Amino acid sequence: MKLGFESLEDLSAGAVFLATGGGGDPYTSYLATLQVLKRTGPVELIPVEDLDDDAFVPAIGGVGAPSVSLEMLPSVDDPIKALQAFEEHVGRTVDAVVPFEIGGGNSMVPLIAAAERGIPVVNGDGMGRALPEAQMMTYPIAGVAPTPAVALDYAGNRVTFSTDSTAVFERHVRSVAAAMGGMITTVEHPMTGRQLKSCIVPDTISFSIEIGRILREFRGNALRTFHPLRDAFAQSLYGDIFHLYTGKVVDHSSTVIGGYDIGEAVLEPFDNDTAPLKINIKNEYLVARIGEKVVASVPDLITVLDYETSTPINAERLRYGQRVTVLGIGCPAFYRRDDAMAVVAPRCFGFDFDFVSIEDLTGHHQALPGTG
Amino acid sequence: MKLGFESLEDLSAGAVFLATGGGGDPYTSYLATLQVLKRTGPVELIPVEDLDDDAFVPAIGGVGAPSVSLEMLPSVDDPIKALQAFEEHVGRTVDAVVPFEIGGGNSMVPLIAAAERGIPVVNGDGMGRALPEAQMMTYPIAGVAPTPAVALDYAGNRVTFSTDSTAVFERHVRSVAAAMGGMITTVEHPMTGRQLKSCIVPDTISFSIEIGRILREFRGNALRTFHPLRDAFAQSLYGDIFHLYTGKVVDHSSTVIGGYDIGEAVLEPFDNDTAPLKINIKNEYLVARIGEKVVASVPDLITVLDYETSTPINAERLRYGQRVTVLGIGCPAFYRRDDAMAVVAPRCFGFDFDFVSIEDLTGHHQALPGTG
Repeated sequence: MKLGFESLEDLSAGAVFLATGGGGDPYTSYLATLQVLKRTGPVELIPVEDLDDDAFVPAIGGVGAPSVSLEMLPSVDDPIKALQAFEEHVGRTVDAVVPFEIGGGNSMVPLIAAAERGIPVVNGDGMGRALPEAQMMTYPIAGVAPTPAVALDYAGNRVTFSTDSTAVFERHVRSVAAAMGGMITTVEHPMTGRQLKSCIVPDTISFSIEIGRILREFRGNALRTFHPLRDAFAQSLYGDIFHLYTGKVVDHSSTVIGGYDIGEAVLEPFDNDTAPLKINIKNEYLVARIGEKVVASVPDLITVLDYETSTPINAERLRYGQRVTVLGIGCPAFYRRDDAMAVVAPRCFGFDFDFVSIEDLTGHHQALPGTG
Repeated sequence: MKLGFESLEDLSAGAVFLATGGGGDPYTSYLATLQVLKRTGPVELIPVEDLDDDAFVPAIGGVGAPSVSLEMLPSVDDPIKALQAFEEHVGRTVDAVVPFEIGGGNSMVPLIAAAERGIPVVNGDGMGRALPEAQMMTYPIAGVAPTPAVALDYAGNRVTFSTDSTAVFERHVRSVAAAMGGMITTVEHPMTGRQLKSCIVPDTISFSIEIGRILREFRGNALRTFHPLRDAFAQSLYGDIFHLYTGKVVDHSSTVIGGYDIGEAVLEPFDNDTAPLKINIKNEYLVARIGEKVVASVPDLITVLDYETSTPINAERLRYGQRVTVLGIGCPAFYRRDDAMAVVAPRCFGFDFDFVSIEDLTGHHQALPGTG
């Protein structure tokens, strides 16, 4: 499948939807990718099955504080320079690239590198969403080593890493990102085709384009978008989609702690006395509670849409007074495995409760307000 | 010249003297080096003139917060592992190693690597003292690039760096040191023999052993040690040595800021009404003032000795009530050059005055109390 510049706007919108509040605003990455694909022509998007078992495929993307990329704009040259630096470092060429995460700008970075190098992008990613730390990717959970890996900064400075532990790699790369200005491009977790087939969250790039298309064609509030979204998710590896809340933002706090956006948002209904909805944020929307009752939690997806247009809203874009609809979605089955839960369960983020799936929390037939 | 384990105690004492308060306590490095040299036999210490012009010589040492090495003890294996990682990274073997700085434990780390690899250590270093940042070494001042360079942590994790700027390298390596537990071994600033001849502060290892011998043989207060020290320095590239103050520590503050020990010490005389002496500290003793008058400043050396024994005292060992003698010493001529002053003058540390040499500040014939 060819992915041309015409698909980027839908990809961008869908990637924000799946990013569950994190991943950074993809607008500047979208502009950079648009410029490259208009010049190079479409990039080839291949299903993971098309990879040879011994193909050599690293993950590529940006690492840092999402808010930095609003001020330090991404360069169209960084992804290809980072890929070249990686190839020099390991002494071989790569056969394809794959995203870290489908969320936000990191859905775009691999497209730029692949277009410039004339190699395919594998359709899928290592999170099926956005998550704040590297060890939460499916790749390391499945046993892929994080290194050899390369980080490149805006000035062309390079750092390479060598460690067996992705948790250690995460600490090193996070500190280098801070020293290098807050946002870097990394090429990491090199995999064989065989390895990638065992752990990729498949088809998320094309699915993201599909979600973006629905949001565009059915632009309007949740009464208009919910059913086509539900149909699309029902046929995906995410499964059911649930309406959690509709209301207005009455409180929102956010602080940068340890390189992350840490915060909380409180929503109240427009005109009834339903208890408030609280959302805990660490880059991403992690936990949603109505009163004291958890209604959705990581690794399941929590997405906030503008009430009037259903445009997904990143956590750093939440503002007092916004009228929003909050949706919850099951996560890919991979993240319900024990080995994945060991690194992405609510307790891994410091919450004092065990994961319960959104199906069990919310019930299978959550009504949409105005239709139920 | 052979450097055997018998010389290590003198080297260690002399290295603290030249470290001007910084460089870290060398005691644990001394113990590690003792163990290695007892096993391997003496290491060869060669004058820089003996290097071939095209010899390949990197600098090696520890980077981090000196106080960390008091708790996270140095491993005897780290220097050789770091050297091996460097050789793998650059794809060639090294012909000799040279210290970053003569100060503290970093005078010992190259001995361990050289003894294990069976290669010589070049007699000299890149500071002639200790200074807190990599770009303050003579090597980068003379135009040597900081990379390729390798950092190794206690667990064997590795990071490599690629940048042309030692100021950028310093920022990257400092942040990696913090992420790697606070203290790492780096191999960096690889030089040809020709380059090293142009910028090394020569013979500081053997001079450090000489200073240590004097402190041991003439153990006692400054009345006993000053003259032999003065004679030794007069024949070295440091030149004159000056008595600045004798008194007791009446105030001492120290805080870790940005990975450095930042502090101030105040001394008062034992029994007269001379104005207090204040010393500003950033890892090293940087500026000494009596009242408002600067009596010595970086890059000249300021050294604090125990009053009774003339044992040099590191900044992190200063305590309220200690009775001490403070000496000032001219720095090697290299550091009075304009290109060196651009990175080590008092203003580079945030002080609001220009450098004046200790000869001009203190006068050539400073009397020793009790003898003048």
